[in-house]
Amino acid sequence: MSDKEPGKKPNTAGLRGQVAGETALCTVGKTGAGLTYRGYDITALADNAQFEEVAYLLLRGKLPKRQELDDYKKKLSSLRALPDALKKVLEQIPKDAHPMDVMRTGCSMLGNLETEADFSEQDDKIDRMLAVFPSIITYWYRFAHEGVRIETDSDSDSIGGHFLELLHGKKPNELHERVMNVSLILYAEHEFNASTFTARVCASTLSDIHSCVTGAIGTLRGPLHGGANEAAMELIQRFKTPDEAEKGLMGMLERKEKIMGFGHAIYRESDPRNAIIKQWAEKLSQEVGDTVLYPVSVRCEEVMWREKKLFCNADFFHASAYHFMGIPTELFTPIFVMSRVSGWTAHVKEQRANNRIIRPSADYTGPDHSEWLPIDQRP
Amino acid sequence: MSDKEPGKKPNTAGLRGQVAGETALCTVGKTGAGLTYRGYDITALADNAQFEEVAYLLLRGKLPKRQELDDYKKKLSSLRALPDALKKVLEQIPKDAHPMDVMRTGCSMLGNLETEADFSEQDDKIDRMLAVFPSIITYWYRFAHEGVRIETDSDSDSIGGHFLELLHGKKPNELHERVMNVSLILYAEHEFNASTFTARVCASTLSDIHSCVTGAIGTLRGPLHGGANEAAMELIQRFKTPDEAEKGLMGMLERKEKIMGFGHAIYRESDPRNAIIKQWAEKLSQEVGDTVLYPVSVRCEEVMWREKKLFCNADFFHASAYHFMGIPTELFTPIFVMSRVSGWTAHVKEQRANNRIIRPSADYTGPDHSEWLPIDQRP
Repeated sequence: MSDKEPGKKPNTAGLRGQVAGETALCTVGKTGAGLTYRGYDITALADNAQFEEVAYLLLRGKLPKRQELDDYKKKLSSLRALPDALKKVLEQIPKDAHPMDVMRTGCSMLGNLETEADFSEQDDKIDRMLAVFPSIITYWYRFAHEGVRIETDSDSDSIGGHFLELLHGKKPNELHERVMNVSLILYAEHEFNASTFTARVCASTLSDIHSCVTGAIGTLRGPLHGGANEAAMELIQRFKTPDEAEKGLMGMLERKEKIMGFGHAIYRESDPRNAIIKQWAEKLSQEVGDTVLYPVSVRCEEVMWREKKLFCNADFFHASAYHFMGIPTELFTPIFVMSRVSGWTAHVKEQRANNRIIRPSADYTGPDHSEWLPIDQRP
Repeated sequence: MSDKEPGKKPNTAGLRGQVAGETALCTVGKTGAGLTYRGYDITALADNAQFEEVAYLLLRGKLPKRQELDDYKKKLSSLRALPDALKKVLEQIPKDAHPMDVMRTGCSMLGNLETEADFSEQDDKIDRMLAVFPSIITYWYRFAHEGVRIETDSDSDSIGGHFLELLHGKKPNELHERVMNVSLILYAEHEFNASTFTARVCASTLSDIHSCVTGAIGTLRGPLHGGANEAAMELIQRFKTPDEAEKGLMGMLERKEKIMGFGHAIYRESDPRNAIIKQWAEKLSQEVGDTVLYPVSVRCEEVMWREKKLFCNADFFHASAYHFMGIPTELFTPIFVMSRVSGWTAHVKEQRANNRIIRPSADYTGPDHSEWLPIDQRP
């Protein structure tokens, strides 16, 4: 889930370092701050807040008072049911589909059934997406894999707990609900990353909120963006011991293979989210009595820093953390969606509040003039 | 379908005039050239080419020889059938849905059923979208409005003719097929407009082709981008005579109301596509014996130029042209999709061939530091 670019050297700049707009939502990599949401340090939020509180902060501009948070969570809990037509659509999607294609299609279909008629409806549509995304992915997943049509109600009053309950069919323990909460906070917002920028470009034509989020999901799907924690999982699962991991990584580095979950397009020395999720991964490791995945992960971190001065980004320890909670690897990126939809939609609201259509220029590299030739005279 | 921005003055630049990458596909508004696709002037293409020939030019880099074009059209004709699961999804979409939501969802669903496994498949996936988009929109439209499940085969060997045949249930006459062909050529490609830029941002994460196109459809849906010919239709249908149109427009100008179909973000003095579609609109007007819509449109053009030096863009005469062919107004923008998918996907191919993730920066306008307060101490 990093913005790390691939090794090859292209001649387009990818707009790196170019200002494409304004935001009051987030700073990434500013000296001494690391990552802030509306000025709040990510560590303070991860230590103290609930994800719903952070979503409220991003979307409404301030931290909620107790009554406001209670009301907000009640509202979100009331919006979890899937429309019948959406269930039928999800049932048409095969088991081997890419779960991000399922999220993208589920969001797009929702836009047909509950269209945003005008921008006065934006907050309600956003809350609905926050509430219903866990239902979309788990309904499809369990129907496709187990053939069951699950109920999308649950006893959990948090989005993270609700997701785990739908996925596993039982209420999660306190630790798991807490880690999901922290994880959703860590992934909620990250300035003008590619998926968020997609949402803003879409918003700049004054398109509807479901189009913005559908586009963002499709962009997050790319392996250079949202897929890094899945790739990290595949990596660490290859190794049975830390020594084996060290040997394996050294070989990969020698062969210049791409190693996902390390480094970042913006952060230069560390990713402030890593220390946070790492401690929770360790707690989960102890809970399940793991003696492999966490020690292997720690060794990978050591080797990559020692050899390449590359640090773990948010994705690397997320892999084992999710795994310890019994989450299938292919659902890692959809969890990212369940979280980042808060940041995406906060950016859409900002874009709409002060809009100009985003329409850059291109350097033209084609032929100056091509002369039309009738079809039978073409070389 | 213009990039015209709204009247208000935002403080973000929308990247206007900033180079965001390279392209060999298109020039827009260069002196003496107007609009070119791979160096070919749009007028030469509209006068001489078939849309499939232009799609081939954009996607494969050169105009096809006769055998190549025959093969390409045969391939496209063979790819028109809808998978059953996609039909079932379209049948779940209500009659009052926004047709662009239908296109977005249809494209996204196709990505679940026929996923692009890797980029070696890109040309096949692109051809499939070109071939099947007319089937998607007409299958839904006629099922939702008439309750019929249409066959998506037709005798027409062109995409434009095929679309008209599915929509009306009978083979179009030569003039209509020709005009559809011209229209699809005019809308095929337009450099780094907002929907194309969305496709490129998505592609830059190395996401799949259906995600890129789904995102582009959502961006084109916005009224500042793809909705202008529908808005133009609504405008000209208000007036019964040219004099009434003049009076109405003068009033709108005095009240500073937004008038769609005029001016352009890039073109300064004229839109080269207007003269082309205008002559076809006139031919269609004569064919149907129209004495209102075309004369009203011409008067609108005169008034806007006289009063505001604003010229008709590609969208304005498209409105009456489509109307004369019996196309419901709400399907105007989906036709844009059927055409622009060629340009979008040609840009995705370019982006993939020389990629760097598109990740700009933002000017931060939020608080420098916010101090965490426990929930009961918040103001």
